[in-house]
Amino acid sequence: MAIRCAVVGATGLAGQQFLAALSDHPFFSVARLAASERSAGKRYKEALTQPHGQIAWHADIGLLDTYADLEVVDAASMSLDGLDLVFSAVESGPARGLEARYAERLPVISTASAYRYEADVPILIPAVNGSHAELIASQRRARGWEGFVAPIPNCTTTGLAIALAPLVPFGLERVVVTSMQAASGAGRSPGVIALDIVDNVVPYIKSEEEKVERETRKLLGRLEGERIEPAPVRVSATCTRIPVLEGHTEAVTVALASATPVEEIAEAMRAFGQDLNPQTHPSAPARWITVHDDPFRPQPRRDRDAEDGMTTSVGRLRPDDVLGPHGVKFVLVSHNTKMGAAKGAILVAEDLKMRGLIH
Amino acid sequence: MAIRCAVVGATGLAGQQFLAALSDHPFFSVARLAASERSAGKRYKEALTQPHGQIAWHADIGLLDTYADLEVVDAASMSLDGLDLVFSAVESGPARGLEARYAERLPVISTASAYRYEADVPILIPAVNGSHAELIASQRRARGWEGFVAPIPNCTTTGLAIALAPLVPFGLERVVVTSMQAASGAGRSPGVIALDIVDNVVPYIKSEEEKVERETRKLLGRLEGERIEPAPVRVSATCTRIPVLEGHTEAVTVALASATPVEEIAEAMRAFGQDLNPQTHPSAPARWITVHDDPFRPQPRRDRDAEDGMTTSVGRLRPDDVLGPHGVKFVLVSHNTKMGAAKGAILVAEDLKMRGLIH
Amino acid sequence: MAIRCAVVGATGLAGQQFLAALSDHPFFSVARLAASERSAGKRYKEALTQPHGQIAWHADIGLLDTYADLEVVDAASMSLDGLDLVFSAVESGPARGLEARYAERLPVISTASAYRYEADVPILIPAVNGSHAELIASQRRARGWEGFVAPIPNCTTTGLAIALAPLVPFGLERVVVTSMQAASGAGRSPGVIALDIVDNVVPYIKSEEEKVERETRKLLGRLEGERIEPAPVRVSATCTRIPVLEGHTEAVTVALASATPVEEIAEAMRAFGQDLNPQTHPSAPARWITVHDDPFRPQPRRDRDAEDGMTTSVGRLRPDDVLGPHGVKFVLVSHNTKMGAAKGAILVAEDLKMRGLIH
Amino acid sequence: MAIRCAVVGATGLAGQQFLAALSDHPFFSVARLAASERSAGKRYKEALTQPHGQIAWHADIGLLDTYADLEVVDAASMSLDGLDLVFSAVESGPARGLEARYAERLPVISTASAYRYEADVPILIPAVNGSHAELIASQRRARGWEGFVAPIPNCTTTGLAIALAPLVPFGLERVVVTSMQAASGAGRSPGVIALDIVDNVVPYIKSEEEKVERETRKLLGRLEGERIEPAPVRVSATCTRIPVLEGHTEAVTVALASATPVEEIAEAMRAFGQDLNPQTHPSAPARWITVHDDPFRPQPRRDRDAEDGMTTSVGRLRPDDVLGPHGVKFVLVSHNTKMGAAKGAILVAEDLKMRGLIH
Repeated sequence: MAIRCAVVGATGLAGQQFLAALSDHPFFSVARLAASERSAGKRYKEALTQPHGQIAWHADIGLLDTYADLEVVDAASMSLDGLDLVFSAVESGPARGLEARYAERLPVISTASAYRYEADVPILIPAVNGSHAELIASQRRARGWEGFVAPIPNCTTTGLAIALAPLVPFGLERVVVTSMQAASGAGRSPGVIALDIVDNVVPYIKSEEEKVERETRKLLGRLEGERIEPAPVRVSATCTRIPVLEGHTEAVTVALASATPVEEIAEAMRAFGQDLNPQTHPSAPARWITVHDDPFRPQPRRDRDAEDGMTTSVGRLRPDDVLGPHGVKFVLVSHNTKMGAAKGAILVAEDLKMRGLIH
Repeated sequence: MAIRCAVVGATGLAGQQFLAALSDHPFFSVARLAASERSAGKRYKEALTQPHGQIAWHADIGLLDTYADLEVVDAASMSLDGLDLVFSAVESGPARGLEARYAERLPVISTASAYRYEADVPILIPAVNGSHAELIASQRRARGWEGFVAPIPNCTTTGLAIALAPLVPFGLERVVVTSMQAASGAGRSPGVIALDIVDNVVPYIKSEEEKVERETRKLLGRLEGERIEPAPVRVSATCTRIPVLEGHTEAVTVALASATPVEEIAEAMRAFGQDLNPQTHPSAPARWITVHDDPFRPQPRRDRDAEDGMTTSVGRLRPDDVLGPHGVKFVLVSHNTKMGAAKGAILVAEDLKMRGLIH
Repeated sequence: MAIRCAVVGATGLAGQQFLAALSDHPFFSVARLAASERSAGKRYKEALTQPHGQIAWHADIGLLDTYADLEVVDAASMSLDGLDLVFSAVESGPARGLEARYAERLPVISTASAYRYEADVPILIPAVNGSHAELIASQRRARGWEGFVAPIPNCTTTGLAIALAPLVPFGLERVVVTSMQAASGAGRSPGVIALDIVDNVVPYIKSEEEKVERETRKLLGRLEGERIEPAPVRVSATCTRIPVLEGHTEAVTVALASATPVEEIAEAMRAFGQDLNPQTHPSAPARWITVHDDPFRPQPRRDRDAEDGMTTSVGRLRPDDVLGPHGVKFVLVSHNTKMGAAKGAILVAEDLKMRGLIH
Repeated sequence: MAIRCAVVGATGLAGQQFLAALSDHPFFSVARLAASERSAGKRYKEALTQPHGQIAWHADIGLLDTYADLEVVDAASMSLDGLDLVFSAVESGPARGLEARYAERLPVISTASAYRYEADVPILIPAVNGSHAELIASQRRARGWEGFVAPIPNCTTTGLAIALAPLVPFGLERVVVTSMQAASGAGRSPGVIALDIVDNVVPYIKSEEEKVERETRKLLGRLEGERIEPAPVRVSATCTRIPVLEGHTEAVTVALASATPVEEIAEAMRAFGQDLNPQTHPSAPARWITVHDDPFRPQPRRDRDAEDGMTTSVGRLRPDDVLGPHGVKFVLVSHNTKMGAAKGAILVAEDLKMRGLIH
């Protein structure tokens, strides 16, 4: 029997990706769509229609009729009756209050940053730190919630944390990362206008670098009792926006504590996450990390959709000692609106269902 | 009286930029155009005409009639009579032999890498290491040449070396740089095809990273007798190509030996190169480095043409300690086909004229 | 003595182009900036600052300090004291009421469509139909205004009407036009987002085709007493948006009443508008139409800025008989935010000053 | 039992699309790869490797190992032994001689224009003019060939002819078409370089307009004995290149002999080609024409891959009388390297197999 979900923030880009990904999901079915007051009371298709008439639907499958005619409810007053789960894709400002209201009764898987930095809230990528889900019990106790909030990381953190996780055993000490982020990361309203990004780079994305640095340490950290001890790794990020539609590219330089041949690192990457696969988690990639030998890969346009946008593609793995005596550098591509947003959140839901936290 | 120049490799993108920049130059006049055997004997306009009829002229001013009708001569057999100077914009393969032949009699300013790593050859950016020009005397002696070869750096090195030069007094120790390079850097034949770069990143440019690392150390090095002692700085580069037409963007992270407030660094950047300006060097920028406070700058489309493409725009200057106890990071934009190629070479020629090496 | 202007809609893309173009104008000086209530009371720079911190300034010269610190007033309540002229760049909805209020006392030159189709309002492009300015006297009488409203055409009409005007003597009968319009035509808020236009075409722009058809007939029409008799030409337009930043490209097919060699048409185009030039009109192009022989021209990126964005570039002129026994087809490029918007409006103001209607 | 095919011109863009499309085809298997002398003797992957190391593979599925290691043979001397069919994707120059040599013994389905305009050669799109295949018998007789040459049209003609075919019963008289063509249409060597097309339009493609005009008339013509009587329709084309990767967009204006409501035309388009579907022709689309009601469609990025790139998407269907008393206009999108090239040719082969001409 299907787990009945609400998608909140359903009109935004991440909300649309939730609908596309849930349209034929084996466990989850969409029972309710919610958005801001402005959209409330409209049919979904109508809520997407712009003043000049264009329907702002951006997922790569067409807008299904089953969604088009659903009424959008006001996220602030949405009834929770008949729901088992909430997927939240709202802005971080409103997320704070909305998600708390939902979590009093229901599990909330969120793409928003509102709760990511709370001590009793894990940021989850199942293959990286699935066991951090244990923190949810403390969260419920502490807050007196029947449900809980489980956020996924920022889309730029996602690929980075996945690529770094297999390096932790080699003594991950320092990381310099330059991101070249896709336009879709800024959503659709207002989004990135063509006049700002065509034939251009925008060298700054507000708060992004702080998120990447903080979330990476928390994701790779160790659960100690009722809190997570951040990993003792320094992360320095420069986040930029470039003229790419989907798929974040990141150039990563890493210092390791121990001398490690790159072949061994490539092997660790290839082996990473193997027991968390589509057999048990329908949205999981068969390979969490795809390592390329061709130095011209990964490329966002050619690699973002590998494994339905759920693998992290790594290439140009080579030794580097600028950060310390031992180290490597590499380039990664991660699909920011699939693994880095809606589908990544659905994968968390699948994992929490396995763990008995969603039913 | 004008100094009569040949432009060799005149049909390529850098060659075209030479012609555009020299069209109204106060010191230099174009007396001869040379290219490969394939173009020899054709009028210049004809040599640029593609099989399907398009005239492959890419400079931002139109193709002047004075050039259009000039006959292109074969670079291999070009007469040096009546010439005072050669600007070479050929590929590094043929550059080796061609530039040696020209240098037997004439000064050769080159955008090619063929001679950059020779012990008796300086790589020149006047404000950075103009005094390295002293090496030219040794070069002439050692090789028995009447002329000499003076290459400029790779276009990705140029902006980096300029931005790093004012940091040397603070003890420049280590540098991590990720470049996001423009399509024009690959020239026009074959160049970067739209199918490879639109909505995409190519994470590898052959030999580019080695050039950036090696040339930066040589440029910032110290002339010691008849050789240049490379600067004791580690440089680690990841070079990528992005969908931008002109202007290389680079994200730079630096470790310094001494604690230095970013304001002091910004001040050093702003003050850099002030005595090398348009009063004496017609192609020099009024400001070698333009420091932006707006965190959304520099952007290649909006900043590449500042000061006619000759300034290095720096922004997002902020402290960073990932590489060591003291350090900064920043983003720069440098015009790769202006300061980074033809106009940068012309500026070197202007400086060597001041030094009495060209007349 | 300078004519003191207000720029209304100053924060939008066209408003910014007004400011850039007026910054060093010999007749006009900017005395007041107005925008919607949302911006009123802010300094101009502040009004341009987006929630995430970016300053949404899009003109190709930087934002001048003289503008940055000006206070923006509310367009609805803007005082007209001390003003001689209003440049209006507001949306057509609010334009209706605002422009009427200003026109009671002052001349209003507008980029908005609100009044374009009124019987007593000319749509002006000086070289095409400067004499239509005579209608302004009727307009004042009929409406009892001290000032008047004089709109320029839609940016897609502008290049078309200029290219067609010299064909009128040959018996212009029918026109099929397909436009490939630049992203800047949609302004900046919301503008065209990268997700909609990169690697794409949008085949529809609301109301655009009707505007082009109707305005072209009115512009090429004959002033008869107190109204303009539209030209007896059928115009059929398909308007699309493509991934170009600036410069509208239009493919035009024309039926003429009389057999006319293309050379004669090219000659008529080259000769068009010669007596309306920079000697008397500072913003006028030296050549209203630039005719290219190279079949690969015009191209928006390479030709939009010719004559400071004020010429209409025409190429691929060739005979065509699909629409009737006699005819031609050609491709044109017109700069939509220069001749097609702010600078085109300033040129109208220069012409009306010559005619004694502005002082 | 599989029909064994050679793909000639295998290294080009169309050749690659053949390999991608044939990799799991139910009837056809790739037995031989041929290309120019330059590639002969190399393994396929090696033949695709550029001087700087990049593997120039452009299909949307990865390069299969089964192809990567195949040896490429010289098209000029390729043995025909063991082959049943040749797919030719060579340039029109060499196609003339090569295809004649192959056709002496084998059926040749070609994307080249070399034979398109010969009296005894049909240009085939099965749902449009499948019966023109009868001409093949005359061709064999006249030329004494065991095999034959059957070309598909130019990629810009394909979508146009499909969209026009259902209008023929309404008396198709005149057509004006403006194409906005994708970069992939120019292949990969040299292809369209980013410097020519990013933020730009190129208003001319050599010989393209003549091809579209001539081929459309032939495709829609009537087989009369041993020749095809071209349809009595005037076609006037303007062909341009825009910054789109795949998918040609065309704005089409049509004059019809009889008054016809657009609903009837839409209905005729929707019904077109229904008996030529995937049941019998594996590569055929379920719907040959997809008619959109949303005026913002079709868009190349969002519609090119509909029905695996085999449907022609039509939108903005509306009445228009500029060309005559009755008429319509519309916009179409057709995938130029799928239906317009390799997959279109494979579909022809499927149809000729049904007709007993290939076995």
